[in-house]
Amino acid sequence: MDLRNYSDIDLRRKDLEKELKISLKNIGSYSLDAKSASKKNCENMIGASQVPMGIAGPLLTAQSPALPAGKSEHKAQSCFVPLATTEGALVASVNRGCKAIKLSDGVIVASHKTGVTRAPVFYTGGIIQEQKLYKWVNENKSKIKKAAESTSSHLKFKKLMFRGLADYVFIRFAFDSQDAMGMNMATLATEKIVKLIEKETGIKCISISGNFDVDKKPSWLNFIESRGHKSWAEVVLKKSVIKEVLKTSAERMYDVWLSKNMLGSAMSGSLGFNAHFANVIASIFLATGQDIAHTVEGSMGMTTAKIMKNEDLYFSIYIPSLMVGTVGGGTYLNTQKEALNILGIAEGDSGKNSQKLAEIIGGAVLAGEISLIASLSVSSLGISHRTLGRGEKI
Amino acid sequence: MDLRNYSDIDLRRKDLEKELKISLKNIGSYSLDAKSASKKNCENMIGASQVPMGIAGPLLTAQSPALPAGKSEHKAQSCFVPLATTEGALVASVNRGCKAIKLSDGVIVASHKTGVTRAPVFYTGGIIQEQKLYKWVNENKSKIKKAAESTSSHLKFKKLMFRGLADYVFIRFAFDSQDAMGMNMATLATEKIVKLIEKETGIKCISISGNFDVDKKPSWLNFIESRGHKSWAEVVLKKSVIKEVLKTSAERMYDVWLSKNMLGSAMSGSLGFNAHFANVIASIFLATGQDIAHTVEGSMGMTTAKIMKNEDLYFSIYIPSLMVGTVGGGTYLNTQKEALNILGIAEGDSGKNSQKLAEIIGGAVLAGEISLIASLSVSSLGISHRTLGRGEKI
Amino acid sequence: MDLRNYSDIDLRRKDLEKELKISLKNIGSYSLDAKSASKKNCENMIGASQVPMGIAGPLLTAQSPALPAGKSEHKAQSCFVPLATTEGALVASVNRGCKAIKLSDGVIVASHKTGVTRAPVFYTGGIIQEQKLYKWVNENKSKIKKAAESTSSHLKFKKLMFRGLADYVFIRFAFDSQDAMGMNMATLATEKIVKLIEKETGIKCISISGNFDVDKKPSWLNFIESRGHKSWAEVVLKKSVIKEVLKTSAERMYDVWLSKNMLGSAMSGSLGFNAHFANVIASIFLATGQDIAHTVEGSMGMTTAKIMKNEDLYFSIYIPSLMVGTVGGGTYLNTQKEALNILGIAEGDSGKNSQKLAEIIGGAVLAGEISLIASLSVSSLGISHRTLGRGEKI
Amino acid sequence: MDLRNYSDIDLRRKDLEKELKISLKNIGSYSLDAKSASKKNCENMIGASQVPMGIAGPLLTAQSPALPAGKSEHKAQSCFVPLATTEGALVASVNRGCKAIKLSDGVIVASHKTGVTRAPVFYTGGIIQEQKLYKWVNENKSKIKKAAESTSSHLKFKKLMFRGLADYVFIRFAFDSQDAMGMNMATLATEKIVKLIEKETGIKCISISGNFDVDKKPSWLNFIESRGHKSWAEVVLKKSVIKEVLKTSAERMYDVWLSKNMLGSAMSGSLGFNAHFANVIASIFLATGQDIAHTVEGSMGMTTAKIMKNEDLYFSIYIPSLMVGTVGGGTYLNTQKEALNILGIAEGDSGKNSQKLAEIIGGAVLAGEISLIASLSVSSLGISHRTLGRGEKI
Repeated sequence: MDLRNYSDIDLRRKDLEKELKISLKNIGSYSLDAKSASKKNCENMIGASQVPMGIAGPLLTAQSPALPAGKSEHKAQSCFVPLATTEGALVASVNRGCKAIKLSDGVIVASHKTGVTRAPVFYTGGIIQEQKLYKWVNENKSKIKKAAESTSSHLKFKKLMFRGLADYVFIRFAFDSQDAMGMNMATLATEKIVKLIEKETGIKCISISGNFDVDKKPSWLNFIESRGHKSWAEVVLKKSVIKEVLKTSAERMYDVWLSKNMLGSAMSGSLGFNAHFANVIASIFLATGQDIAHTVEGSMGMTTAKIMKNEDLYFSIYIPSLMVGTVGGGTYLNTQKEALNILGIAEGDSGKNSQKLAEIIGGAVLAGEISLIASLSVSSLGISHRTLGRGEKI
Repeated sequence: MDLRNYSDIDLRRKDLEKELKISLKNIGSYSLDAKSASKKNCENMIGASQVPMGIAGPLLTAQSPALPAGKSEHKAQSCFVPLATTEGALVASVNRGCKAIKLSDGVIVASHKTGVTRAPVFYTGGIIQEQKLYKWVNENKSKIKKAAESTSSHLKFKKLMFRGLADYVFIRFAFDSQDAMGMNMATLATEKIVKLIEKETGIKCISISGNFDVDKKPSWLNFIESRGHKSWAEVVLKKSVIKEVLKTSAERMYDVWLSKNMLGSAMSGSLGFNAHFANVIASIFLATGQDIAHTVEGSMGMTTAKIMKNEDLYFSIYIPSLMVGTVGGGTYLNTQKEALNILGIAEGDSGKNSQKLAEIIGGAVLAGEISLIASLSVSSLGISHRTLGRGEKI
Repeated sequence: MDLRNYSDIDLRRKDLEKELKISLKNIGSYSLDAKSASKKNCENMIGASQVPMGIAGPLLTAQSPALPAGKSEHKAQSCFVPLATTEGALVASVNRGCKAIKLSDGVIVASHKTGVTRAPVFYTGGIIQEQKLYKWVNENKSKIKKAAESTSSHLKFKKLMFRGLADYVFIRFAFDSQDAMGMNMATLATEKIVKLIEKETGIKCISISGNFDVDKKPSWLNFIESRGHKSWAEVVLKKSVIKEVLKTSAERMYDVWLSKNMLGSAMSGSLGFNAHFANVIASIFLATGQDIAHTVEGSMGMTTAKIMKNEDLYFSIYIPSLMVGTVGGGTYLNTQKEALNILGIAEGDSGKNSQKLAEIIGGAVLAGEISLIASLSVSSLGISHRTLGRGEKI
Repeated sequence: MDLRNYSDIDLRRKDLEKELKISLKNIGSYSLDAKSASKKNCENMIGASQVPMGIAGPLLTAQSPALPAGKSEHKAQSCFVPLATTEGALVASVNRGCKAIKLSDGVIVASHKTGVTRAPVFYTGGIIQEQKLYKWVNENKSKIKKAAESTSSHLKFKKLMFRGLADYVFIRFAFDSQDAMGMNMATLATEKIVKLIEKETGIKCISISGNFDVDKKPSWLNFIESRGHKSWAEVVLKKSVIKEVLKTSAERMYDVWLSKNMLGSAMSGSLGFNAHFANVIASIFLATGQDIAHTVEGSMGMTTAKIMKNEDLYFSIYIPSLMVGTVGGGTYLNTQKEALNILGIAEGDSGKNSQKLAEIIGGAVLAGEISLIASLSVSSLGISHRTLGRGEKI
């Protein structure tokens, strides 16, 4: 189905329901299980905020290679991508990127689950005690693991990172929380670890979070060490596709990429060497019930480009810190659950679903980068916002 | 009205309607003007995403001083703050912060409109031509201003920042876009400026945006130079309020602030020397129709604390780069417009409404910081998520 | 003269004396005016540290264009560059870069004097007083200027940058200190300004330096706003020179530049998108009596490359924050003065000498980048350190 | 001996020789083994740069605790610190800090050897090959170790850090190079590893250094992961010492520390949350034959302060990335070797000497922070530069 061939919203949705064999009645009828939401998601509730949801795609994912342990193994597939946004032109832009990807034989995606982190700060009193704590922690990792894992059967302790600063110590604990984003699980597990440390060493915790986590703040620590998932996606855009679908050339796209994403970002002290990761991530996060404040971490990362001998264009993205889940939090809300269904994300907690989501987001972010960089390279940014954001036909 | 005294969502909303003398029928009935949204805000639309909306407050804003030109002058006031979120405990947290502020005689807020920016990148060919462009730009600012302002009666050219790098030049143009967030207006004005420069100097623009803007990426440039609005808020929390409402002490809050917001953020290479600006900003942005990807800029900034002689606690926030608008974009959607009404934001484009919004957000962000830092200082983070996020009574 | 054609250090120095018609007796005889140094430069003195000084060049500087006001206008020239270092291979590397530049018709350099900065921090007590101070400062710039300039006939007030944060205010003052690096002059002028502000507003200064200067710490503020001088240099390396002198190709050099200086630096959260600015800057600083701790600011900056149609390679550097002077501080010491003579830097305080030095350093840094990137592109880094650092002939 | 009680440089040096039972004839007589230096340290040599060397101290180091493996175990000691500088007031400032430390019962120091790093960049062609390389590296760490260690009996492979970005891979290898700073050894070992990888995987290295090392550029990667040594130092300054030696109060010093080192550094996007690490590090590096361009890494780091109940002041420094060695490079030069002797650094390559140097530098840096923060807190920065830098008596 060509998503653009509908003048009627309901018809588009109904055909999508047929095509995917799912129900989208809540997305269509604007309903919400207020009782449940008021208990789990939102205090002092008075109703709901409603944001238009559009569809881009299909996004064709090429068969991934057999991956080493710790990497996912999902099969080649094609899926539609739901985006909730108020920014005219965004869905159309991702849609065009998906088309270019599809006609170039699909995107290759990969991901790595680093795990959710929580980092308490302790007050030691000074260097001598800091070194005792360092010793204790190094010698008692199995106790720490056991304490953490006693809090949930869905959580595995992965690793820790210890940093002493004067009379303070920061310890960043990383956990595998299966398909949950896992922030709350990580907090509970960390509380248990903290109690263990306090009891056995006498050293007190000042705060269960010492901003060495780093939650919802841009930071080089998360860029370098990753938090949640790493996500990569790449495609070799064919010369003919660049010309006919994107209306530009590999060289022009490369020039924009280099001057904007690399040089301009360097000149501005940015952690985002990309064009607009945040747009695509925020709109998928909103549609699928993710914590939208995690868009902050998702906005960091890099796009790369390389002109091939035959004037094809290698194009890729890398998101170092993508916090997503397919169970818990906002994912249980009616419209959000349906949006996950559109993506073909399975129910349950296999531990593979969040990786699949991380990889699809990688692919969609790539589509967004391709389309925007292409637009900029032919000076059409203003034009597309003018025509799309103000109601003219695409 | 005490927002927590309702077991029924509809009753709470209805009392709020009475209290504020406004209608909240869309927030309550989950409706959306799909036709308009599908033209202006979202292509390939299939329906809507729905996110629970809660209310915190009232947020008491103390009378601001007579401010110098370029600063707003809004009066003392009290308002309820709408937050759309799926993160249990967030609304309750802001609500508690508002209570502490109110019992401490209110928050003082201030803001400064820096203006929306757009920064094209030009290809000059080298240092010699770069210096010619530098000269031309310096000598033709009035032409640039005239070109920019010819594109809209709502836009004023404010200033520019010129940076030469090898054979490239980045120019960051800042505009006052009145009550609009103004990204699209800034793009159109910049296109006009670019045409002028290309015509008069022969130097070509590579991309209308060269990431020196910097849009939706965390960056030191926006932290240092500001984009959109700067927003400040401060309160002196009374010792009695800290004890009775926040269940902690000034010293404990100070210790958490220093070790977490300052030392922990420094150790992690973060641009967010705060606890959770992004949570509050994302949820107000979502409720009021802002571009939620701008949460990225909003996540940067600083919280400060100081223990007073009498054990009161001076507490403040500073957001250097807050992108908001009260007209255009998502603000016209039904539920979003009603949320702006809850805040008492006037209709129309006086140029003062967006500043008012920036200042209220500053106050709400302060409330969020107060409550979270207080919780952390008595180890109750896990507890509040446990009781609130899982449905027990507050 | 070909500097490499000497087996004897003294002969090389003597021929250089003849060629430049200057005396280098102190560099040759290891003498130091201990009495003067012990008063002006170093307390508790016991003698001197001695570091080998080598010579690279000549560095051919192409005729610069007529530059706009505020840019220097020095003529085309050729000069030898003194480098004091203990790192084998460094002088040889710069020397090779100079040769490649010379055979490619010389480097084009430019600079812009931003001025030395000093930034006190004030305690205001809160937002209201902060805004009063903001108003006062804006309305009294001429008083500020007058106060500053009363402290020295060699100092001009240039501009200020005001930042309010909670109950603190940081003001960064920039001064033109003619040919002096100017840190001490700036401190004295700022003290005078501070007294004026304290007297007229009653607001107290906490510290004459509030790290918003930013002195001898890497910072995005100095990268973005510049401190001291900006320095640019560029050359179009000829295909034949790349092949014969640098033993590589434009494409190989480009690949190393992109992957190392851009992608690798981005991945590591670096402010140095370059190969080794710090090496060249530190060794010239040491030779010419600069403050070597200012190498920190000098290590920030960018190298760029672009392959031309004819396989020539455009290559450039940009140093945003170069703190140099040709009078005062260590420049009066014997060997340091002679090293400035080697560069042809005139005596006296015309205000143009420090810019000339900034531009020569830019050219030498470019030479260093060219040679190292070329070496890396043919895997010869280990080899050159092995042969040069261990005593084999170049 | 009180270093300040000498009007004659030679007498001071001679008494120091007696006190320490060492010879300082080269420091006193300005000699240099030019032949050796011209082979190992500097090409195209013409002589030497001479920089005044002063002495601060004694620096009293308190008995360190029994430290866990990987930490050094040096005993309590007292040493004089040689500083080569042209900045008047610097030696006097460190000297005063040493006095305050001594009268407060000495500094506690600690260090951790992270190891020198080298990080080549590889071109893989894309995600699939990247994952093959990832797998190979993970499964062949012992081969990598063996290859590295075959290049020198003084080098041990410590660990690696693998980062995939699009069609590139960066691998950061860390080595223990005993008492050498080790950059050249690390390069040779990495070359061997690279050959192994290229041979076994067919994947090519683009550059032996991909700026993920990160050498001589400020970077968050080195701040977070450390390079060379971590160094900590702390002291509890007694109230009486603060008053009598430093002429200020704990509260004033704390206020300057908080507003300058923390808030001001945060506001300027700095990696240096300190007052002037770079000054002390550069001058010790210069005196002892370190690579002065490594001052760049050394300028990063944090100072902390805390007022104790009895108005003593806890004061500490943390340097995350200190590159030092006591053999190789410039350490063999005459005056530099004597400066190491002043510090009591033993000859030979036990692997403990470089740690001792890292810890002494930590202590001296602490002394420098104490004195400068104290000066700033009573507005005497300008005064001390005026009296010392211009020749008046201290």
